Amino acid sequence: MAESQNITSAEELASRDELRELVRSQLQMFLEQENFQGAKTLLVPVQPADAAHAIERLPPELHAIAFRLLPKDKSSEIYEHLDSTVQQTLIEEFKNQELQELIDRMSPDDRVRLLDELPADLVRRLLKQLSSSERQATSLLLGYEPNTAGRIMTPEYVSLKEHFTVSQAFDRIRNLANITETIYALYVTDGTRHLTGILSLRDLVTAEPEQTIGEIMTRDVVSVHTSMDQEEVARTIQRYDFLAVPVVDSEQRLVGIVTVDDVLDVIERETTEDIYALGGLQADRENYFQMNLFRISRRRVTWLLVLLVTNIFTGGVIAANEDMLEQVVSLAMFIPLLVDTGGNVGTQSSTVIIRGLNMDKIRTRLAWQIIRREALVGILLGLMMGIIVILVAYVFLQDWPVALTVGLSLWAIATLASTSGAALPLLFKSLGFDPALMSAPFITTFVDVLGVLIYFYVARALVAF
Amino acid sequence: MAESQNITSAEELASRDELRELVRSQLQMFLEQENFQGAKTLLVPVQPADAAHAIERLPPELHAIAFRLLPKDKSSEIYEHLDSTVQQTLIEEFKNQELQELIDRMSPDDRVRLLDELPADLVRRLLKQLSSSERQATSLLLGYEPNTAGRIMTPEYVSLKEHFTVSQAFDRIRNLANITETIYALYVTDGTRHLTGILSLRDLVTAEPEQTIGEIMTRDVVSVHTSMDQEEVARTIQRYDFLAVPVVDSEQRLVGIVTVDDVLDVIERETTEDIYALGGLQADRENYFQMNLFRISRRRVTWLLVLLVTNIFTGGVIAANEDMLEQVVSLAMFIPLLVDTGGNVGTQSSTVIIRGLNMDKIRTRLAWQIIRREALVGILLGLMMGIIVILVAYVFLQDWPVALTVGLSLWAIATLASTSGAALPLLFKSLGFDPALMSAPFITTFVDVLGVLIYFYVARALVAF
Repeated sequence: MAESQNITSAEELASRDELRELVRSQLQMFLEQENFQGAKTLLVPVQPADAAHAIERLPPELHAIAFRLLPKDKSSEIYEHLDSTVQQTLIEEFKNQELQELIDRMSPDDRVRLLDELPADLVRRLLKQLSSSERQATSLLLGYEPNTAGRIMTPEYVSLKEHFTVSQAFDRIRNLANITETIYALYVTDGTRHLTGILSLRDLVTAEPEQTIGEIMTRDVVSVHTSMDQEEVARTIQRYDFLAVPVVDSEQRLVGIVTVDDVLDVIERETTEDIYALGGLQADRENYFQMNLFRISRRRVTWLLVLLVTNIFTGGVIAANEDMLEQVVSLAMFIPLLVDTGGNVGTQSSTVIIRGLNMDKIRTRLAWQIIRREALVGILLGLMMGIIVILVAYVFLQDWPVALTVGLSLWAIATLASTSGAALPLLFKSLGFDPALMSAPFITTFVDVLGVLIYFYVARALVAF
Repeated sequence: MAESQNITSAEELASRDELRELVRSQLQMFLEQENFQGAKTLLVPVQPADAAHAIERLPPELHAIAFRLLPKDKSSEIYEHLDSTVQQTLIEEFKNQELQELIDRMSPDDRVRLLDELPADLVRRLLKQLSSSERQATSLLLGYEPNTAGRIMTPEYVSLKEHFTVSQAFDRIRNLANITETIYALYVTDGTRHLTGILSLRDLVTAEPEQTIGEIMTRDVVSVHTSMDQEEVARTIQRYDFLAVPVVDSEQRLVGIVTVDDVLDVIERETTEDIYALGGLQADRENYFQMNLFRISRRRVTWLLVLLVTNIFTGGVIAANEDMLEQVVSLAMFIPLLVDTGGNVGTQSSTVIIRGLNMDKIRTRLAWQIIRREALVGILLGLMMGIIVILVAYVFLQDWPVALTVGLSLWAIATLASTSGAALPLLFKSLGFDPALMSAPFITTFVDVLGVLIYFYVARALVAF
């Protein structure tokens, strides 16, 4: 691929994935043959994300060699796309001079994200390599809490003054174009760095050269505070369809911007956390294949131990009703059904409520309305299933009292489960906790214990006479 | 707010949310007093998304009045931000002339998204109102499958020719700036609309006026096919940090572009679908508060009925072992524990695997490696929990055989659950099914039925002698 080809027909390469695989295998071949010139030329026209993909999938011993062949002006960008394990390996291999060139050239927000993922000794080594202006920019960002706007922003934006003409603005943009994160979102500040307006490059392009920035800009500025949670920053960008959002401090001075591409990554990480929480897991920062089995097990066992404790109570209730079971052994048959149903109805309700809360589509002030709806849904579901179960149970056992016991208990459990599935996330959210993390163990406990209590209570009423 | 104020100090308004609430209450007040001039002036400087928010929260009878006061050049954009229920109400209220102005001015991709959400009679009415060129653009998009690149793209992009100079390109951009979706991502086509290169407005701004487009552009074009799934389009934009990605047909001709702001919405919808699937739910397109209770229950009952069938088998296994239970009633105490543990270990494993598959971080070709890891994790978890349970059970029952039965069964169930939690999603993915949708019912069935079988088998071996 000495001269990059246009993809002129779909038949040539079935997909971008195949292209990337091709690049990787070609690269590996060149490196193994020590054809460094060929490898270099191969990598020149390749998209940074694809070059990173190719390097990652080389055998580890070739990582550093391949990276050193990259064109200097793209190496930082390619580095940012690499898997964190490969990033660490390279840092450990590089000499100080190479490190400095790499780290200094990164944009501050990407640098901070890298530093956040590295072990402390590597972080110290890297910070020492930074030029003093870059170290200052980095310390600024590191001064903010993780997962906030201040931490993920970059101070490399274009600022203009209201009195600039459109042509003056263009000159400034041209000078800054290669060192700012974006030139499409432009920020207007006054003499004390207060954010007074925003405009887009599109606004500038469609304006007359003699107009001033003050005439064109929008004064109704949407900005975020440095302490805003990154998920909320992401939602703000999504709501307003922005390319970037300005970050201000408590005096409304502009300190940085967050761009939409970083937001996509934030959203992916936050979503994985939410999905894991709903599944009873803590999110891992590391690659699945990198984690050692003991660590994985240790992280998963927490939730399971909670369940164990819950089931001491359920077991206790069943033990207390052993006389009932001795009398009517067939009652035991339905225990898994009741436990499963409670679990699933509860999960359905809590999934809807938790997702709605996270997406800001449900507000806690409507809590009672929501709980009432879910309770009604539980009643309907319990009714539908209860009737089916009574019939099925009768077909198998020819025993109305037991069948009715199971049906009624199922109805009660479904209602309980949907109600608590809605109520508990809302309660936790209003107390300031993460609804996804806290709800599942409590919902299960509540529903399981109350469920078996109801079961045996109804059984005693209907069966034992 | 006749002259929009800068937000000069954080104390003035604690948050953007408060500002929006202020706009809404002011607007409502003006409308109720029939102060239409005041309402109009209020809305002029407000961000489209915020104006939509304000209108949505007005009493329904004021929606149309408020909307008609909006400045014409922003009304389409504001309309796109409205909740779909409000959108429908407005359409039903509008006269044909108003409809035409509204619909004609929308960008094609937003129009198609609106049409996709409306009932058929409204869609027909709207299509009739379109001017013929807009109807053509719309039909083009509607011709593509839902949820594909072709459906979510817009044909309003900037295309340039290789021989253009930078100044000529700027002229063209200036002319197109108000009618294209974006001017920051620029596409170079040949005489037959084949996509030959791409460049960014930043590239153009930093170039010399006499250079040609052909000299500046990148020939290594990343594009997507019209039939590509929208989730994959989103991933592509995310991977390459693009602002937009070009969409080509099977002859590599450029037909449209998908911009990053639309991708954020796609990601949110697709994530909700995934999260719901993991919770045993089908995703709803509608607002939570709009759906009637019977519909909600009907959509949730499917998964629950599957569980019912599963539990006929578990119930059957328990029934077949009733003699065992009669002998050792305390065995019943632990059934909820075993069922819960199987469910949760299975959920943990499948959550990790399914999320990894959806994020393209796990590939099916590494299936055996993954299954083996999860099996080992299950063994470790089962060991940890099994030991704890044996001790706890002994403390409660003073009965080693039962305690050991429970512990060993738990160990076996944990291993089974983690293995199938990994294996089944991988199997379904490799067969072309959605792993999230299919896995949960099957995993639960498999683990529950085998779990009780193992429990009683071990019980017979250890307890009954």
